[in-house]
Amino acid sequence: MDNKEELRGTRRRLYEIIFEADTPAGRGFDLVLLFCIVMSVITIMLDSVQSVKDVYGDWIFGLEMTFTLIFTAEYIARVAVVLNRRKYIFSFFGILDLISILPTYLALFVAGAQSLMVIRSIRLLRVFRILKLTRYVGEGQNLTRALKASQHKITIFLFTILTTVIIMGALMYLVEGPTHGFTSIPRSIYWAIVTMTTVGYGDIAPQTALGQTLASFIMIMGYGILAVPTGIVSAEMVSLKHSQVTTQVCPHCLKEGHDADAVFCKFCGGDLNNG
Amino acid sequence: MDNKEELRGTRRRLYEIIFEADTPAGRGFDLVLLFCIVMSVITIMLDSVQSVKDVYGDWIFGLEMTFTLIFTAEYIARVAVVLNRRKYIFSFFGILDLISILPTYLALFVAGAQSLMVIRSIRLLRVFRILKLTRYVGEGQNLTRALKASQHKITIFLFTILTTVIIMGALMYLVEGPTHGFTSIPRSIYWAIVTMTTVGYGDIAPQTALGQTLASFIMIMGYGILAVPTGIVSAEMVSLKHSQVTTQVCPHCLKEGHDADAVFCKFCGGDLNNG
Amino acid sequence: MDNKEELRGTRRRLYEIIFEADTPAGRGFDLVLLFCIVMSVITIMLDSVQSVKDVYGDWIFGLEMTFTLIFTAEYIARVAVVLNRRKYIFSFFGILDLISILPTYLALFVAGAQSLMVIRSIRLLRVFRILKLTRYVGEGQNLTRALKASQHKITIFLFTILTTVIIMGALMYLVEGPTHGFTSIPRSIYWAIVTMTTVGYGDIAPQTALGQTLASFIMIMGYGILAVPTGIVSAEMVSLKHSQVTTQVCPHCLKEGHDADAVFCKFCGGDLNNG
Amino acid sequence: MDNKEELRGTRRRLYEIIFEADTPAGRGFDLVLLFCIVMSVITIMLDSVQSVKDVYGDWIFGLEMTFTLIFTAEYIARVAVVLNRRKYIFSFFGILDLISILPTYLALFVAGAQSLMVIRSIRLLRVFRILKLTRYVGEGQNLTRALKASQHKITIFLFTILTTVIIMGALMYLVEGPTHGFTSIPRSIYWAIVTMTTVGYGDIAPQTALGQTLASFIMIMGYGILAVPTGIVSAEMVSLKHSQVTTQVCPHCLKEGHDADAVFCKFCGGDLNNG
Repeated sequence: MDNKEELRGTRRRLYEIIFEADTPAGRGFDLVLLFCIVMSVITIMLDSVQSVKDVYGDWIFGLEMTFTLIFTAEYIARVAVVLNRRKYIFSFFGILDLISILPTYLALFVAGAQSLMVIRSIRLLRVFRILKLTRYVGEGQNLTRALKASQHKITIFLFTILTTVIIMGALMYLVEGPTHGFTSIPRSIYWAIVTMTTVGYGDIAPQTALGQTLASFIMIMGYGILAVPTGIVSAEMVSLKHSQVTTQVCPHCLKEGHDADAVFCKFCGGDLNNG
Repeated sequence: MDNKEELRGTRRRLYEIIFEADTPAGRGFDLVLLFCIVMSVITIMLDSVQSVKDVYGDWIFGLEMTFTLIFTAEYIARVAVVLNRRKYIFSFFGILDLISILPTYLALFVAGAQSLMVIRSIRLLRVFRILKLTRYVGEGQNLTRALKASQHKITIFLFTILTTVIIMGALMYLVEGPTHGFTSIPRSIYWAIVTMTTVGYGDIAPQTALGQTLASFIMIMGYGILAVPTGIVSAEMVSLKHSQVTTQVCPHCLKEGHDADAVFCKFCGGDLNNG
Repeated sequence: MDNKEELRGTRRRLYEIIFEADTPAGRGFDLVLLFCIVMSVITIMLDSVQSVKDVYGDWIFGLEMTFTLIFTAEYIARVAVVLNRRKYIFSFFGILDLISILPTYLALFVAGAQSLMVIRSIRLLRVFRILKLTRYVGEGQNLTRALKASQHKITIFLFTILTTVIIMGALMYLVEGPTHGFTSIPRSIYWAIVTMTTVGYGDIAPQTALGQTLASFIMIMGYGILAVPTGIVSAEMVSLKHSQVTTQVCPHCLKEGHDADAVFCKFCGGDLNNG
Repeated sequence: MDNKEELRGTRRRLYEIIFEADTPAGRGFDLVLLFCIVMSVITIMLDSVQSVKDVYGDWIFGLEMTFTLIFTAEYIARVAVVLNRRKYIFSFFGILDLISILPTYLALFVAGAQSLMVIRSIRLLRVFRILKLTRYVGEGQNLTRALKASQHKITIFLFTILTTVIIMGALMYLVEGPTHGFTSIPRSIYWAIVTMTTVGYGDIAPQTALGQTLASFIMIMGYGILAVPTGIVSAEMVSLKHSQVTTQVCPHCLKEGHDADAVFCKFCGGDLNNG
């Protein structure tokens, strides 16, 4: 934002179009870009469907090259127009913009690499910037803050799961053994994760009575453990909602805890806006 | 409600019977209607069970036609009796009433169309209107309000899931490939959704060590993401309950919404306990 | 409890032993009874395992008859000893005590009926009465109260699920059809329930692109809907915890919101126990 | 910690290195130990993968023996250096340190026993001690306290599940029978647990209409029951966060635990703001 003041002439106009969405031109540019991103992701998806590729293969290849050229031009324009180049190039969106065009060029030499182009879908996150929905940005920040506030709890939680899953996997490997699909400890750990997260594919499932008993314990445990992250996030959300409402301090009695729509202090009746 | 005053004579009486449930006749009409809806839905279900259809096919066809005729008559009566026709016809229940009778007539020309009749089951929502359970209506409104209040968070959440699922699907397509069931990116995305939502059919499941490792990450991530919508709704519910607790009305300005520990009205500063 | 005063002599002593757990004899009776219930449930389970039955069939039959005779004697004793016979016989535990002995006698005439004996396991709930754990009873009542307070919300929630599941089932029946396992609408509804609750057996799974897309919507919707009952119960639990702490009213300033361990009013400093 | 003052010379220095992490040497020891634990767990995992074992079997055996000797030396050192030997040996980490080295020696005589070595992974919990992350320890204690506070509710919850699962298992055994995979009541109970926890392997699934209807009830019930532990933990987390907010200490009686809106100490009635 600071660089904006120092940009002059054409470059500044281009900067406003490409990086901002306040002007009609900037907004138009962003909408066209978003449309290209969505279309490009759909093209890549269709490219992977054999029956579609057989018929429209040439069209898809043409579209992919076109979108890649558009995104390449966009990337070059962004680098050319921005003042602090280093900062943009190594920013989240800067890196993303680059790696979303590389796979197509790579695919000219390595077969299958074009699937990596789907990374472009992360560019869809630009939609929030384009729509200028400050409410959404604010909510997103709240969500992020809530998760950050819980990061210590979540680390412990993940560590607990990791340890549980390793031990349970090893025990099931002992109990069920390779003949029932538990061919190795890593594979048993995979099974334990599939079970604890309640996904339960059923590609590997215990078949002995002891294994099923052990599995039952893991499931009920997973049931309870599922409650922990939910409880953590719920508590953060609740406290977030609380703190959003109550920040004002009464100038008369210095008490806080007032609602956002309060005009007078609920403890002493003083005017909250005039001390 | 306003039109009621302007309706006169027979039409008004019919309006009260068909659209309201205050009078014994209106209540009776609604109960008969609800019974017909339930029976009609059950009839359609049975119609799809081959073994039942083979034996009672004629009965089922007769019942279907009967219910459709009843609902057609009801629809015509509603249109005839209501004052603001346009408003009813394009209201939620108006459209629903119409499309719940169309499939049967359509089925006379297009085979299989009668399954669409199951849309009638949405008409079961009338049960809440019929029972006049204002408590239920209030609770339903609370639920709806809680979901509305969280809509920005939920949009971000859905968008995050969509992006995650597309990228994960593409990665798994690369890692596992068509030989292990991941025949295309859309199908891999379908697998990613099945996995992240912890449904886990097992019709497609990773078979390579790398694929299973990646799947494990997706599962544990899905586990954590599951906590976000729950946390959102929980926080809304908690704050809803809080705000419900305060039912006091200020004797000075007649506004409500005061906290349980409020002494003075937060809107006008008047003493809440002395009028 | 009231009848106790009117009981005299042996009958009163027996009443205390059988129905109460205050005296050593009463406690001993209840513990023996609990042991019999647990052993009897285990016996019935083992009876269903073919390999165990082949070897120990006679023993199991003997044990079953023994336990049934014990429970029959207990039931007769309860009826004989209680003052208000009608009340006991038609109480929850009275009916339970009776139907837990009937299957064995029924099994003498109808093969397979002995499996119904597992209903006895509900009798395990007596453990809470026996252990006289008032804390557990209190917590159980809290849980029940929380669920009761949410019953309107839960009713709406169940109704929403029911309607959703019926419509989704019908749509999937149309889309996938009998060739892909969706042989009838009831069976498709069963699939929709399996999917929305994130159980996901995989015995029926969509195979067409359209079906998988529809299924994806159902899964993500189910994901969000899962948040509703959790949010409801969480909110109830939070308000329950709150209300458990704050019930006292200050005799000086009549304010409430005091903690359970508070001695003085936190608003005016007055002694909470002396007005 | 008390013993530290009484330790002298070399022994005290060794105690500080082995048991504490304040000094650079102590920290270095702990980091090396942690590295060994992680490597040893990975070795055991690789040992179970047949294709890896075939090629690197000798290397893996060598590494296992090396790690076991290192851990044996560490255990002997800990016992030698600690003052209160009895306390250490029977402490959680003491027992863990011992049973994590026994399986290797046992494996020299009993085939397959080396899998038990995976119990070593619990030793990974030492990571929290090593990193000296008091924040993590605090959060962990909070989590533990929240679970402890809910233990009565959780006990009732588990008991309810157990009873439900036994009864449902027996009913499904009756309804579906051995021909549809429900070969015994214990196996049916296993199925009920798999279903209620929403894991849903699909290795056993109801096939009759009645069985599927019953299963649908269990699933929706499980859906609702899932909300209970989450609600419990959420409520604990919320109240934990609340209670954390109040850090004020009364200047008169030095007690803490006051609410944010408290003016007077709730224990001694003194003014919280004037000492």
